[in-house]
Amino acid sequence: MTATLPENNDQKPVGHGRMLRKEDPRFIRGRGRFVDDLQLPGMLHLAILRSPFAHARILSVDTTAAEAYPKVKAVVTGAMLAEQNLAWMPTLSNDVQAVLATDKVRFQGQEVAFVVAEDRYAARDALELIDVEYEPLDPVIDVRKALDPNAPVIRDDLDGKADNHCFDWETGDEAETDRVFDEADVVVSQDIVYPRVHPAPMETCGCVADYDRIDGKLTLWSTSQAPHAHRTVYALVSGLPEHKIRVVSPDIGGGFGNKVPIYPGYVCSIVASLVTGKPVKWMEDRSENLISTGFARDYVMRGEIAATQDGRILAIRTNVLADHGAFNGTAAPVKYPAGFFGVFTGSYDLEAAYCKMTAVYTNKAPGGVAYACSFRITEAVYLVERIVDCLADALGMDPVELRLRNLIRPEQFPYTTKTGWVYDSGDYEPTLREAMRIAGYDELRREQKQKRENGELMGIGVSFFTEAVGAGPRKDMDILGLGMADGAELRVHPTGKAVVRLSVQSQGQGHETTFAQIVAEEIGIPPADIEVVHGDTDQTPFGLGTYGSRSTPVSGAAVALVTRKVRDKARIIASGMLEVSVADLEWEKGSFHVAGDPEKAVTIQEIAMRAHGAGDLPEGIEGGLEAQICYNPSNLTYPHGAYICVVDIDPGTAQVKVRRFVAVDDCGTRINPMIIEGQVHGGLTDGVGMALMEIIAFDEEGNCLGGSLMDYLIPTALEVPDWETGFTVTPSPHHPIGAKGVGESATVGSPPAIVNAVVDALKPFGIRHADMPLTPSRVWDAMQGRPTPPI
Amino acid sequence: MTATLPENNDQKPVGHGRMLRKEDPRFIRGRGRFVDDLQLPGMLHLAILRSPFAHARILSVDTTAAEAYPKVKAVVTGAMLAEQNLAWMPTLSNDVQAVLATDKVRFQGQEVAFVVAEDRYAARDALELIDVEYEPLDPVIDVRKALDPNAPVIRDDLDGKADNHCFDWETGDEAETDRVFDEADVVVSQDIVYPRVHPAPMETCGCVADYDRIDGKLTLWSTSQAPHAHRTVYALVSGLPEHKIRVVSPDIGGGFGNKVPIYPGYVCSIVASLVTGKPVKWMEDRSENLISTGFARDYVMRGEIAATQDGRILAIRTNVLADHGAFNGTAAPVKYPAGFFGVFTGSYDLEAAYCKMTAVYTNKAPGGVAYACSFRITEAVYLVERIVDCLADALGMDPVELRLRNLIRPEQFPYTTKTGWVYDSGDYEPTLREAMRIAGYDELRREQKQKRENGELMGIGVSFFTEAVGAGPRKDMDILGLGMADGAELRVHPTGKAVVRLSVQSQGQGHETTFAQIVAEEIGIPPADIEVVHGDTDQTPFGLGTYGSRSTPVSGAAVALVTRKVRDKARIIASGMLEVSVADLEWEKGSFHVAGDPEKAVTIQEIAMRAHGAGDLPEGIEGGLEAQICYNPSNLTYPHGAYICVVDIDPGTAQVKVRRFVAVDDCGTRINPMIIEGQVHGGLTDGVGMALMEIIAFDEEGNCLGGSLMDYLIPTALEVPDWETGFTVTPSPHHPIGAKGVGESATVGSPPAIVNAVVDALKPFGIRHADMPLTPSRVWDAMQGRPTPPI
Repeated sequence: MTATLPENNDQKPVGHGRMLRKEDPRFIRGRGRFVDDLQLPGMLHLAILRSPFAHARILSVDTTAAEAYPKVKAVVTGAMLAEQNLAWMPTLSNDVQAVLATDKVRFQGQEVAFVVAEDRYAARDALELIDVEYEPLDPVIDVRKALDPNAPVIRDDLDGKADNHCFDWETGDEAETDRVFDEADVVVSQDIVYPRVHPAPMETCGCVADYDRIDGKLTLWSTSQAPHAHRTVYALVSGLPEHKIRVVSPDIGGGFGNKVPIYPGYVCSIVASLVTGKPVKWMEDRSENLISTGFARDYVMRGEIAATQDGRILAIRTNVLADHGAFNGTAAPVKYPAGFFGVFTGSYDLEAAYCKMTAVYTNKAPGGVAYACSFRITEAVYLVERIVDCLADALGMDPVELRLRNLIRPEQFPYTTKTGWVYDSGDYEPTLREAMRIAGYDELRREQKQKRENGELMGIGVSFFTEAVGAGPRKDMDILGLGMADGAELRVHPTGKAVVRLSVQSQGQGHETTFAQIVAEEIGIPPADIEVVHGDTDQTPFGLGTYGSRSTPVSGAAVALVTRKVRDKARIIASGMLEVSVADLEWEKGSFHVAGDPEKAVTIQEIAMRAHGAGDLPEGIEGGLEAQICYNPSNLTYPHGAYICVVDIDPGTAQVKVRRFVAVDDCGTRINPMIIEGQVHGGLTDGVGMALMEIIAFDEEGNCLGGSLMDYLIPTALEVPDWETGFTVTPSPHHPIGAKGVGESATVGSPPAIVNAVVDALKPFGIRHADMPLTPSRVWDAMQGRPTPPI
Repeated sequence: MTATLPENNDQKPVGHGRMLRKEDPRFIRGRGRFVDDLQLPGMLHLAILRSPFAHARILSVDTTAAEAYPKVKAVVTGAMLAEQNLAWMPTLSNDVQAVLATDKVRFQGQEVAFVVAEDRYAARDALELIDVEYEPLDPVIDVRKALDPNAPVIRDDLDGKADNHCFDWETGDEAETDRVFDEADVVVSQDIVYPRVHPAPMETCGCVADYDRIDGKLTLWSTSQAPHAHRTVYALVSGLPEHKIRVVSPDIGGGFGNKVPIYPGYVCSIVASLVTGKPVKWMEDRSENLISTGFARDYVMRGEIAATQDGRILAIRTNVLADHGAFNGTAAPVKYPAGFFGVFTGSYDLEAAYCKMTAVYTNKAPGGVAYACSFRITEAVYLVERIVDCLADALGMDPVELRLRNLIRPEQFPYTTKTGWVYDSGDYEPTLREAMRIAGYDELRREQKQKRENGELMGIGVSFFTEAVGAGPRKDMDILGLGMADGAELRVHPTGKAVVRLSVQSQGQGHETTFAQIVAEEIGIPPADIEVVHGDTDQTPFGLGTYGSRSTPVSGAAVALVTRKVRDKARIIASGMLEVSVADLEWEKGSFHVAGDPEKAVTIQEIAMRAHGAGDLPEGIEGGLEAQICYNPSNLTYPHGAYICVVDIDPGTAQVKVRRFVAVDDCGTRINPMIIEGQVHGGLTDGVGMALMEIIAFDEEGNCLGGSLMDYLIPTALEVPDWETGFTVTPSPHHPIGAKGVGESATVGSPPAIVNAVVDALKPFGIRHADMPLTPSRVWDAMQGRPTPPI
């Protein structure tokens, strides 16, 4: 059940199965084409001046010296943009965000001015010649203090805004939940912080904007996870007509939600190209990316759980303070934090649940991108899996035993949660038992007992998660207000090769392989003969992009269905070629034959040539062999999984070592198990980082303490064990091939397993909880009985 | 009725009507993007060594010195290609053609070797260092002598080929035609030559081939009129899979059929890129283009016409010897010369008709591209309009009077010719009468009479033509064996702007304007808001390309119909938005409103936003607002026209001056009259060139005498009059908007009018015919009673 490379790398299934990724030859050979690889004739370079203060008034900006610097073509300030009514942009998260600051700066790293020059070095050098006079203001950094009546008001740009309050949301039945809590045998409450972390993709954000003054057409190559949505937004905010904007996402070096928002840098680059008439490149450096773009989490939560004395979980109640930073970025929750509300009740059959969430502004970078997983599912799963462990501790029960007792049972699916979400399918207990089998759970507990007796700190942590992915049908997950349907087009060429066009695009997920396999499975054309086109609004149908594990649940379904449309047409053409009725044809992957006479057959390739004119077609059938679809799923998909983590803690240094990690995922039908395992491995590594190492912290002045990879630690191969993966298969009933999204499962499911293991290891110290990241100093504090310091 | 510029250039109709071309701003500003504008990093340059002999055996090719020349990267001969089985390519015209000659050269200018070098100059210089030893052979130049049993056999490469015979074709009922001729009062016979001419587009042929070794993908930017068809052919002949070939036709500087064939230069460039792993550019110079690519006509014809004494035309019989050159090029007639057979009976109601055609090989450049008009319609119309004038002369009737007497009458449509073609619609007499009105025909005749009395040589020529265009439904016009249907796709973006994708592409016809207007007319989105995408196989649906005036008849119909599909979907969405049934909605260009309540309306732009998720859609309706179609018309379209030409001939120098030219065209519904007039002006200019100036002649050795624009004369503004255009409108009954193709009408219709005028002017000399081009020397010969010299 563990991941293995296929024995024969040439193995190319015509359909689902293990095969090497089609896109890898170019990456392995250094021939990927990333935004920063683009070199256009006459291209200029843009650099952004960023605020050194978290909160300050801008008194003046003097660009004289910068403008005089050699090779500098333009220096632009917020005041100049304001003259064109471009200083602020709507975020589509019910907010506005400064493109370049005019009145005040509201977070350290905020965009204040930009320089365009003939090369990157000149642009950077000239930044230092811009003289900005600031009047520092008190910053609001601690989310707990943001709503203090005496706190400085951050968003005084908003009409009548007199505090830092942003949103209030709630879900569930508060009165009923309170009643169940009041009557419960046992109530456990725990304050839990999910710290601010950063997706830290290998490639930072950037773009090349190229406005052609003759055609009036803007081409924007950008590191975007959602080129179509970005195009529509640019059209709506800039006044450039949508058909005159082309957004291209070429090869992208990782996204993880960091590349969903529209950043001021993109808008600045567009403005710069409009002004200069030249292509303009902007690429963040690592520090800019870490300080100013797309953070995630930053939730201060109280979780409460009510149960009977014998371990029947009755209800969950939670209160969340969400730090949205200085602006609601484009991907921040608007309508409400849907994923959190959808799955904070976990994988358990409850009687009641209630959640209240308050979002506030702080002087931090704008808020709320979905770092795998979207819509705050990661935080919700962490919360519930932590408090279930707290409950197990209070009851003196084994945490696995407690979970087994409360998991939703297979006959309860589709299962409607107490907040009204419908889990599509699941069979939870076998998944948990498979994880226990692989881990050798009982043996581990015996080993732990023995080690404890020797004073060794070994911990075993378990987590069980249910995700809600494939943003899709729920309007409350429609972050852009553009619906959640995705298009797909399949065209079979005359010679039987095919091209499939997707609205989603890849930041490394292997779409060129997975989607070719989906087509292959449905129509029998080998994956090598199928070109996957994505990431270019001029070449693909409209759709919302790649985030929230939605590619397979939404676009994968679209591709399967559009392929079936093409196959249906091929069947009619085949009936003409074989001179039998459609009903007399049988499909065998790649060809139709006359029922009972396999010799009388035509291949899909022969049908394609016929469809393009090499002979007559049945009456009323158009030529060509292609179809298009716009697919809107009827429900989300709900992958689940059971993870077990084993840690050892050095009692002298408090260093945590993840010794083993067992991940059993159920994402329904598995298209390419090798790619699934790759996704899981990546997500588990994310989990180790978040649980043990990663935090974007701030000092009291609002200085970001995570501005480099020396400060913001991300895991390497040295910090992770050999992953042990397994799977169960519970197909999604509404997805045409039964697949569920798996891109974020491991990121969601692994932090609670690791933290549960650490807390379990620290049981001898009477610990019930410690906040991430569980660095040696924090673990040491916990061992000393000191609480986790506030963020 | 004459062409005028619109008074207000900003006039932009939402639909059909005069508007300036959307593509012109880039051309006027020098920002067109032609193949030779492409500069790719590391690009190499290819030059072709061509044979100086028309017919010779290759004894040896020594490339040593060329290979040693600085900057040279590769020198490739036919022998090297033969090792890879690439020395010959199938032409899809039932023949093979040498990519590089191996055994023999068969025409002057044939490709013998190529050099790839770092720049164009080095490549050209190195050509001169290739040492080829030839053994000259007797050439076959005169088509009349090609079938002589003693003539050298040109195609000895073909198994068992013992003569120069290529094809025999016939159409009509020979016995019945002979019977009518035998019983007729009057029979007139005339030998007529349509000389070899060249389309001579402003841009020569060329390409940039770029093979990416990592992706295995070939991109070919080429001067092709048919990128999709070319791609399929490359896939079939090269073994490269079709989805790994992208053919792009960027801006093209004129085609006129010259850019339909696949030339060896394209294949050489592909080979060169495969071999070097670099992009390779090949651009012909003018001489290469004139000598080796795509000639047209070269028909030696005998036309016979039978009539009653009072001018009732009974039958036409004709025998044609067609010169196909050394190879049947990709666009040569294969199945039979369809257009010729379709319209050689002209616009007249006959009792019988018969045509026999023999095609032969000669030692000339490969044969038979369709220089407007396709399928040999130009030759057929010239033949019939010439012999009708000969008949008028024999009968002593006015040529207009004779035509009026014999034109097919409106009630006879759809009219089936004696060779089985079905003219879709027509009302001929009004068209001819409109031409007479504009010309002031009777007054002209009076003027002529007077001038003749003074010894002045004034001639009045008339022609009436019917074309068969829009290759389409007739399989006998399927030159590529890939069917004749064309795809179109229309997508309306969320903000209501649109993109329409065409399988045809433009070489200057104004597609970006015309097709935007067709969409605008059907759905009410302004043409400025519609992007027209064409000329890129990666971005457009499959189709056969732009030739034979087929863009409007085939793709224009496809675009109208696909737009109606989108409008039908919009209607359903509108019914949901307005909460009424579909039947209660009325369409007014650009919006639907509730019948009887124009205030309750939604625009197409509002519908587009709704379709992309800004609200609920009616049950069962997919998101998005787009459709695709593959359109195969049920018939060709048959535009017609009446042209009247007035010439003056200098009796001292025999110089012909076209004093007036009246062109009344009927192409059915007129989408953009300004573009139609532009097409007509261009075609009339072509006609002046062919009638008076142009000929690709050869000496006895087979040396091409038309290898430069000093030798091959094409008309300029100095040689043409102010055109006088008019129109009638007889819509095509089967075309969704009633339009017929007009791109070639004037090229087809004008030569006979001019020649008829010249012959009319020479009546005092007893002349009944003289062959084109009617240069001063030929006219002088005719005035001296000397026959036109053979070509």
